[in-house]
Amino acid sequence: MIKAGIIGATGYAGGELVRLLANHREAEIVWYGSRSYIDKKYHEVYQNMFRIVEDVCRDDNLEELAQQVDVIFTATPQGFLAGILTEEILSKVKIVDLSADYRIKDVKVYEQWYGIQHKSPQFIPEAVYGLCEVNRDQITLSTRLVANPGCYTTCSILTVYPLVKEGLIDVNTLIIDAKSGTSGAGRGAKVPNLFCEVNENIKAYGVAGHRHTPEIEEQLGCAGNCKVMINFTPHLVPMNRGILVTEYAKLKRRDDGELPSWEDIRAAYDKYYAGEKFVRVLERNLCPETKWVEGSNYVDINFVIDERTGRVILMGVLDNLVKGAAGQAVQNMNLLFGLKESEGLELVPSFP
Amino acid sequence: MIKAGIIGATGYAGGELVRLLANHREAEIVWYGSRSYIDKKYHEVYQNMFRIVEDVCRDDNLEELAQQVDVIFTATPQGFLAGILTEEILSKVKIVDLSADYRIKDVKVYEQWYGIQHKSPQFIPEAVYGLCEVNRDQITLSTRLVANPGCYTTCSILTVYPLVKEGLIDVNTLIIDAKSGTSGAGRGAKVPNLFCEVNENIKAYGVAGHRHTPEIEEQLGCAGNCKVMINFTPHLVPMNRGILVTEYAKLKRRDDGELPSWEDIRAAYDKYYAGEKFVRVLERNLCPETKWVEGSNYVDINFVIDERTGRVILMGVLDNLVKGAAGQAVQNMNLLFGLKESEGLELVPSFP
Amino acid sequence: MIKAGIIGATGYAGGELVRLLANHREAEIVWYGSRSYIDKKYHEVYQNMFRIVEDVCRDDNLEELAQQVDVIFTATPQGFLAGILTEEILSKVKIVDLSADYRIKDVKVYEQWYGIQHKSPQFIPEAVYGLCEVNRDQITLSTRLVANPGCYTTCSILTVYPLVKEGLIDVNTLIIDAKSGTSGAGRGAKVPNLFCEVNENIKAYGVAGHRHTPEIEEQLGCAGNCKVMINFTPHLVPMNRGILVTEYAKLKRRDDGELPSWEDIRAAYDKYYAGEKFVRVLERNLCPETKWVEGSNYVDINFVIDERTGRVILMGVLDNLVKGAAGQAVQNMNLLFGLKESEGLELVPSFP
Amino acid sequence: MIKAGIIGATGYAGGELVRLLANHREAEIVWYGSRSYIDKKYHEVYQNMFRIVEDVCRDDNLEELAQQVDVIFTATPQGFLAGILTEEILSKVKIVDLSADYRIKDVKVYEQWYGIQHKSPQFIPEAVYGLCEVNRDQITLSTRLVANPGCYTTCSILTVYPLVKEGLIDVNTLIIDAKSGTSGAGRGAKVPNLFCEVNENIKAYGVAGHRHTPEIEEQLGCAGNCKVMINFTPHLVPMNRGILVTEYAKLKRRDDGELPSWEDIRAAYDKYYAGEKFVRVLERNLCPETKWVEGSNYVDINFVIDERTGRVILMGVLDNLVKGAAGQAVQNMNLLFGLKESEGLELVPSFP
Repeated sequence: MIKAGIIGATGYAGGELVRLLANHREAEIVWYGSRSYIDKKYHEVYQNMFRIVEDVCRDDNLEELAQQVDVIFTATPQGFLAGILTEEILSKVKIVDLSADYRIKDVKVYEQWYGIQHKSPQFIPEAVYGLCEVNRDQITLSTRLVANPGCYTTCSILTVYPLVKEGLIDVNTLIIDAKSGTSGAGRGAKVPNLFCEVNENIKAYGVAGHRHTPEIEEQLGCAGNCKVMINFTPHLVPMNRGILVTEYAKLKRRDDGELPSWEDIRAAYDKYYAGEKFVRVLERNLCPETKWVEGSNYVDINFVIDERTGRVILMGVLDNLVKGAAGQAVQNMNLLFGLKESEGLELVPSFP
Repeated sequence: MIKAGIIGATGYAGGELVRLLANHREAEIVWYGSRSYIDKKYHEVYQNMFRIVEDVCRDDNLEELAQQVDVIFTATPQGFLAGILTEEILSKVKIVDLSADYRIKDVKVYEQWYGIQHKSPQFIPEAVYGLCEVNRDQITLSTRLVANPGCYTTCSILTVYPLVKEGLIDVNTLIIDAKSGTSGAGRGAKVPNLFCEVNENIKAYGVAGHRHTPEIEEQLGCAGNCKVMINFTPHLVPMNRGILVTEYAKLKRRDDGELPSWEDIRAAYDKYYAGEKFVRVLERNLCPETKWVEGSNYVDINFVIDERTGRVILMGVLDNLVKGAAGQAVQNMNLLFGLKESEGLELVPSFP
Repeated sequence: MIKAGIIGATGYAGGELVRLLANHREAEIVWYGSRSYIDKKYHEVYQNMFRIVEDVCRDDNLEELAQQVDVIFTATPQGFLAGILTEEILSKVKIVDLSADYRIKDVKVYEQWYGIQHKSPQFIPEAVYGLCEVNRDQITLSTRLVANPGCYTTCSILTVYPLVKEGLIDVNTLIIDAKSGTSGAGRGAKVPNLFCEVNENIKAYGVAGHRHTPEIEEQLGCAGNCKVMINFTPHLVPMNRGILVTEYAKLKRRDDGELPSWEDIRAAYDKYYAGEKFVRVLERNLCPETKWVEGSNYVDINFVIDERTGRVILMGVLDNLVKGAAGQAVQNMNLLFGLKESEGLELVPSFP
Repeated sequence: MIKAGIIGATGYAGGELVRLLANHREAEIVWYGSRSYIDKKYHEVYQNMFRIVEDVCRDDNLEELAQQVDVIFTATPQGFLAGILTEEILSKVKIVDLSADYRIKDVKVYEQWYGIQHKSPQFIPEAVYGLCEVNRDQITLSTRLVANPGCYTTCSILTVYPLVKEGLIDVNTLIIDAKSGTSGAGRGAKVPNLFCEVNENIKAYGVAGHRHTPEIEEQLGCAGNCKVMINFTPHLVPMNRGILVTEYAKLKRRDDGELPSWEDIRAAYDKYYAGEKFVRVLERNLCPETKWVEGSNYVDINFVIDERTGRVILMGVLDNLVKGAAGQAVQNMNLLFGLKESEGLELVPSFP
């Protein structure tokens, strides 16, 4: 039985980790870290866990934690883990970091977009970007540190990855218009996240400056072997869960001067995702809906070619708390310990 | 492996049965009945089941079905099962009926409230009212027909049952004010169920005439060994899932002339529910919230004594599609076949 | 042109006052008080008012304000106005107080339910309880202080008032089950009011202890000329605006031993509300819906007699920010200055 | 007093017309046309209008209607008006058509995108495209037929119009990602519009084929004096009202090789909208929110320059039933009859 500790167990992503691990057959949580609720019963913070979790919340003592557990999930603000991580800790325990601290390889880019100094850049090189479908072979028994991708990022990258990899689009024409449920904004008590402010409302935010932008650019640059510069615009949608990305890009013409056909593009998706359990490329003409993946680890993807404009429109959806956070973290944990990748993640989407 | 067939597999309750049985280790669905979608792939009707269910929908042939399966779930309109059930069918297969056809023992009461003639009253006596926490010992390997309780009914009865049983309240002062999410209204295409009509709106309906009333009255009468007449008022709430009942009743004074104490009432709950996995009586001063049980088979209950008025206010919540329909149906199936009662129902509530 | 000042202009009720007065032909706001946003432009706090209100927010200086305006609306926390009100202020300006400070005549009851000491009980006797449909003749040019009723209270009282007045019900059997949209909880940044906590959720709160209880009891006691003790249970509903009350009471039998007829009860409503612009008693068999009064000053009411139990079930709806707060405050202002009572309140409900 | 008739008065747009005209000082509705509800009282269809509208619904007799009224609003399906419009009718009455029948000048484009034959193309040339802010001088006392723009179209065009007009962007790089509340889908009873299907869900639809595309292209082509081909993708959002468009385009470099500055773009907006009552270009760095214009005739617009990618991101919001339908129709009526353009439209947005 793998012993797991969570730092930040009372945020929404932390709470989802607790939900998922409660049904995991090979892992158990032994440390519910939550600086805000120390000594309070976990189920007093999340009443849904009444009679399921009896533990109390504990402080964020990474060193003590490293002694007691096999894996630590850090669902913490940016800069937290980077500020306290040491070689000693990493020598004792595996870490799946749900923050952005080790996602971006170029530390200058990190510092510029996040506006903070990175306190432990020495661990960046060894951190694996935990997008399992892309980097599975790097997430192994010997991996110590996984940077769990962001929610927008996971959805944005997986939706377009095969097309970038296969050179089907001009990646610098890529525009990603993303829409997220409100749990992505966290459980902090702020006026803009109040029910009456979010309900019956939609808005863009972080336009041209959202921090998931460089993460997407770096990963797509890696896939396409080129420098990538995109527009990424997130929007806040009045629903709890779910992300939808709508992506636009110019198709590159084939050697015969024609646009790639539907079959060409579908073939690219199949090449990378045919064997993927958690990526579902939909049947022709279906538009993905966030509701169809709610509560599950699936990413649903589809595309439409616009012959008139020569663009392809891609759509991808996931549950931001599952595949966009806790689910992917568990998927990474499974890989890190050589378990069945889908253990604890055989979640059937809930409808309605 | 138990073979199950569902008639009405494409309604919301039917869909939830499919979701729950997909993760059940001892049962599998072999017949997805849906008269409206015959020959259509099930996942075309519920896209969330893409890659999970590959079957096509089939007609409602109860006789053929009885040959092929061990248990039939009928998630059908009132009168459907009563109209076609025969001794021959019942001799071959167990039936868990999610409609009201066999819930009410007094056939006249059924015919009066439902406004239809009961076509097979001969099976009413043997049908067991499948409220597992109350009638567990009647749901056995030899039971052939289970009347799965209604969603409002399950919540209403379980919330007040121990107090009636223990004679703590004057049951004829009982008023049940119930609030339900919209999935309870089904998937029929009707103007009053459109998003724009339900959203940002709340209303009562079926006032003084809702069909779950006699079902509650019969069961509570049975528990209290007296004739019961209550007011039950359902309301439509702009949310997908969840039922909350708020119940009001006059407390009977104890022999010493005092009102029952908090401890008295709590003891009554503990007497009946202390060992119940799916009933959670909350800690003092907590009000149940539908969100805390969403997606699970739990019923959460609590109460407040109002010394001023001598009334007790009870609150109970459940997920109308799980404990209020499909979850309880699975619980009944487990009992019918001697399986672990919670098999397939170890569902952790999802939040947010 | 009446000059009006608002203290607490940036809460939801204050904001609604600004919306309503913007279209009032006889009044204008000259002071937008908001301690939290002093010197900030009002439309920076409420972007909907961009280009409509150019003023900046100002401090809560009641004395200076009394010099400059004809009427002050206080949309402030309990205890605020009571703590600073003086005879000198009242000699200069009329006040419509949206808080509870002067609603309850019995100061001990106020202090007990609100848990604070009343700092200026000397003004309680002269304060008029501003439920216009009931106390219209006391709200006159010579009235200085109006206690604007609470949102739950307005809805609860108006729904049952004629039946109490006419002695049709046993008022001590009255149970009020109320459901409110979330704007009633105010704009404070608290976790329980976050979108993800309220959305897809319903719960009771303040059970047996909500502060609107004594206000309802006092007013109904006054109407029925008897001591009244009721149960009042509020619930939080995932919608922005609207209150629905469902009320239950035993009907008193007539001299002939029969229950009052539908016509009897309807006649009672007509007796008090036939000429009321803002109270709409619906046609038989229609259940009021909050959506049908949204954005307007209407209260919609209807009732059902349950012959089986001898109870009448009453339903009433209003928009908590309009008739439940700002609309009623404007209605009171109109009466205070001898204007047409409906001036600025000819608001057509918005649907959907 | 202008006499108005509505055909399609019981759809959502028709209902909004009724709401707006109820407070219009110069016009009154004398004919509530609704084929589905003939002889039924209007307020039985829309209970919010109880005691406000006493009329019954009437059939769609355009000829009789033309005799009785000064202006007809047709809030009807595509093809309806084109199928019955005659010179005789137009000689008697002005028509504001809320359908698409006369919006597109190129009848072939209309027939291709709408898949129906245009039955009266002879009236297309005289029809004025009623986007008041753009074509105000063509909407005059002598105008007989106004094609009221679509909801997506109004928002999409007004948001980018000044930039196209001033040649600041490469219009063929324009991508419009639009998000709409569900009232845009109409009041038809269809499963995809049920509460449980829309709530907690977001999806794209009509990808690369939505009928508002050619309307936007024609108008922008007209503004930019060039052929325009864009991508337009609508999305369904779980809210009742509101449209948000997020638009992306490559900025053209200035003669000095630099990108246009913020001031350059702002100046373009000011050039066209400085005097416009209903277009609010927001202060720098604010993102428009649909909630801030709800219930009003405003369009709120803003933009962000992304120096990295050389694109400008535009955002625009409106209430789809007001400025996107009924409000703009009233605005057109005001112009057609020489009234104050904002008469009946001084609607303060409602929040929350």
